[in-house]
Amino acid sequence: MQLDHVGVAVADLDVALRRWAPLLGGPDAPPEDVPSQRVRVAFLSAGATHLELVAPLAPDSAVGKFLAARGEGVHHVAYRVPSVAEALTDLMRRNERVVDRVPRPGARGRRVGFAHPSAFGGVLVEFVEGP
Amino acid sequence: MQLDHVGVAVADLDVALRRWAPLLGGPDAPPEDVPSQRVRVAFLSAGATHLELVAPLAPDSAVGKFLAARGEGVHHVAYRVPSVAEALTDLMRRNERVVDRVPRPGARGRRVGFAHPSAFGGVLVEFVEGP
Repeated sequence: MQLDHVGVAVADLDVALRRWAPLLGGPDAPPEDVPSQRVRVAFLSAGATHLELVAPLAPDSAVGKFLAARGEGVHHVAYRVPSVAEALTDLMRRNERVVDRVPRPGARGRRVGFAHPSAFGGVLVEFVEGP
Repeated sequence: MQLDHVGVAVADLDVALRRWAPLLGGPDAPPEDVPSQRVRVAFLSAGATHLELVAPLAPDSAVGKFLAARGEGVHHVAYRVPSVAEALTDLMRRNERVVDRVPRPGARGRRVGFAHPSAFGGVLVEFVEGP
């Protein structure tokens, strides 16, 4: 199972890009809006995986509420799976909670789905469809 | 810059290993005590990187305090660098705060060092020495 990226909640995408530049360099592509999650994101390469900087587009989005409650920091960990639908179904079959019962469109044109943090001991796990 | 691992604070290592097994399988090696950080850790492979499960050996260790304050969840993100000493010095030269001013012995026989979360917008970044 490949780690696709680590998602970090940030208040301001430009400030965060400047902060991480000395360690990881610039973003892979220009920042992108993800309407399904009401966020604006940028991906930075870190070897075979990425750091995703996630800024809310609205204060009442999931990431906006996360920032209000906990401040900036690691928000989720994303694994690449052949089928997001199957990964979510497998969790539900094991009576684990999920945020998404079916895949939704995510960043970079990929299908994604989130487990509930209770399924992985407080870690919000995202599944990203891809090889 | 390679992501070496994502560190997750857990209350009980055995419980956590069972929780992550369906996603990532078993640990790379038997769990290991890291006296310098008063933790017991296990590494699970996730493609070119790892998930590190970190359980405190004492309630007043850094990870013990983290669990008491925030509960289980992502604790740190570790990048592989050729020289931990240089990575820490570079941060201090840029007037960023560090937890470790010099490298200390970490898990898997590696030299490690921690930046202060303020240096990366609330993300606790560890440097791990290695190719």
